[in-house]
Amino acid sequence: MHEQPQDTTRIAFAELTQILRKIFVKGGVSPANAAILAANCAGCERDGGLSHGVFRIPGYLASLKSGWVDGKALPVIERAGPSLLRVDAQNGFAQVAWAAALPQVLDMASGQGAAVVAIRDSHHFSALWPDIEPLAEAGFVALSMVTGLACVAPPGGRKPVFGTDPIAFATPVAGTHPMIFDFATSAMSNGDLRLAARAGHNVPLGTGIDRSGALSDDPKQILDGGALLPFGGHKGAAISLMVEILASALTGGQFSSEVDFSAHPGAETPRTGQVVIVIDPARGNNAVFADRVRKLIDSVRDAGQARLPSDRRYRTRERSEREGISIAPEQLDALVQMAAD
Amino acid sequence: MHEQPQDTTRIAFAELTQILRKIFVKGGVSPANAAILAANCAGCERDGGLSHGVFRIPGYLASLKSGWVDGKALPVIERAGPSLLRVDAQNGFAQVAWAAALPQVLDMASGQGAAVVAIRDSHHFSALWPDIEPLAEAGFVALSMVTGLACVAPPGGRKPVFGTDPIAFATPVAGTHPMIFDFATSAMSNGDLRLAARAGHNVPLGTGIDRSGALSDDPKQILDGGALLPFGGHKGAAISLMVEILASALTGGQFSSEVDFSAHPGAETPRTGQVVIVIDPARGNNAVFADRVRKLIDSVRDAGQARLPSDRRYRTRERSEREGISIAPEQLDALVQMAAD
Repeated sequence: MHEQPQDTTRIAFAELTQILRKIFVKGGVSPANAAILAANCAGCERDGGLSHGVFRIPGYLASLKSGWVDGKALPVIERAGPSLLRVDAQNGFAQVAWAAALPQVLDMASGQGAAVVAIRDSHHFSALWPDIEPLAEAGFVALSMVTGLACVAPPGGRKPVFGTDPIAFATPVAGTHPMIFDFATSAMSNGDLRLAARAGHNVPLGTGIDRSGALSDDPKQILDGGALLPFGGHKGAAISLMVEILASALTGGQFSSEVDFSAHPGAETPRTGQVVIVIDPARGNNAVFADRVRKLIDSVRDAGQARLPSDRRYRTRERSEREGISIAPEQLDALVQMAAD
Repeated sequence: MHEQPQDTTRIAFAELTQILRKIFVKGGVSPANAAILAANCAGCERDGGLSHGVFRIPGYLASLKSGWVDGKALPVIERAGPSLLRVDAQNGFAQVAWAAALPQVLDMASGQGAAVVAIRDSHHFSALWPDIEPLAEAGFVALSMVTGLACVAPPGGRKPVFGTDPIAFATPVAGTHPMIFDFATSAMSNGDLRLAARAGHNVPLGTGIDRSGALSDDPKQILDGGALLPFGGHKGAAISLMVEILASALTGGQFSSEVDFSAHPGAETPRTGQVVIVIDPARGNNAVFADRVRKLIDSVRDAGQARLPSDRRYRTRERSEREGISIAPEQLDALVQMAAD
């Protein structure tokens, strides 16, 4: 067993999920929806995605309490075409809408060869990889995008118009777990920016602009009336634009710049949309697909890339499954208290 | 009429296409395939995409002469699923395979709501936007990716494993032309790197590495046993990886790192694959889609982004259509000579 820092305890995934489920129900979420949110949140914590783990619980609860998001929402699913599923999340959480759609999505993709899911009026407050990992585990390739809260200005611009607008991609890999990337199309996540501001660290030039529109390496200036920038200059900005078009215009959801929860003090979640594109390599008789991906990934490692997307996540998961999920005792105490109150 | 530089003449699109058609036929391309390649190449020249215009003619001809690519290839199309079309380009040019597939693709996408086209054993030696512009003009959203020749190392690596691996996206926009982006997922295109080397200019740090794997701002060192890097660090590298997976592993084409034309001196074209993902916004009853995209684009301009993807291309096209395509007289003379010989 690895050595453990003094200030960390370990909890089993099932136990943490159970605690979170109770907290969500107390917060006004229906029992069925609470089970989905709890598993998703505990999964992020288990895999080391701490910014989407139990750290988010206060934000979930405040958003529910504000009346901005409906924890009891029942998604409405419409088969708009043999390969196009439209889901109205009814102002509920995106994970709930996605869980309702997933069985149909698997069926559509294997029957048609490809499927697109367009979710609207949904709140995505978690990572994207948990949504598409089950698809890659079932042999499918999947690409998903989601819009957020406007905090990213286009290059050369001064006003935020994009969210951090993440994009995620999952693929099966022969002989090992799926490879999944999942990243914000902003140069830095909002969470990391806030951490840098709190620690008094500068950020790399190109991360964001101050309120005058000038590049700034001071996270406080970026947060105070400035804006983040997309990653990778004009190319990254084009990807952000695509995320807004596919996750919001195509689905019928709001753009990041249209989200207005000012009438709901405490609200933190974005009421936007999400798109998932699924392709079945086997439907095209490409039985060697997962082997070919494995060959590619091996060649990238051979070329010298030390860490590929999701390597660290799976390592953390493995340890969590062996030893329990690492959590600070006072954080766990607070969760247990919230569940019992 | 705008003032014209002394060293430029103007030629009508139809006339240039006719000259290029004759050149391709003389180079060993079948008349039907030559018409497709000529229109594609003249279209790039017309729109100011000079690196994919008549500049490429010597590369096309040398590749044909080397026996590496088959100018007379007849693509084989297989409906692998209601929404999945597989195309074997039979070692011919990708534009020819795509032209054969397009009518079926339009039909599939509007009937199913979504369609995926997987082209393999194809040589893509042009821009990507001409492939997907017709889809956006017909009301569809389209995303395409193509692999190339290995010249891009993964971050932290020393060996090239990716091609410049472009990605392109097209969407209808209410009241105006489609918006299309089309860019290499490498930090710089090969053409621009060579131009910088010839001019003796440095390139931004992050563009590439020298043969020892160290970052270099000297384009000569990057070209001499070094490698380009992906745009946008690890995030851009993840996008390059996705391009290889979708355009090659999924289609059944070769990876960029597998292309070996050493037995065909003079060959320049990549023998890889291409993927096209098409979605029909109307099939989902989202009749307002193009209006919503227009609203988004207007908001990005309002936020201060001076130029959006494809703005410059449409401006150049408009002028070319009004005044003829700008071309150097000696370049035109050489083309006329090649067509007549």
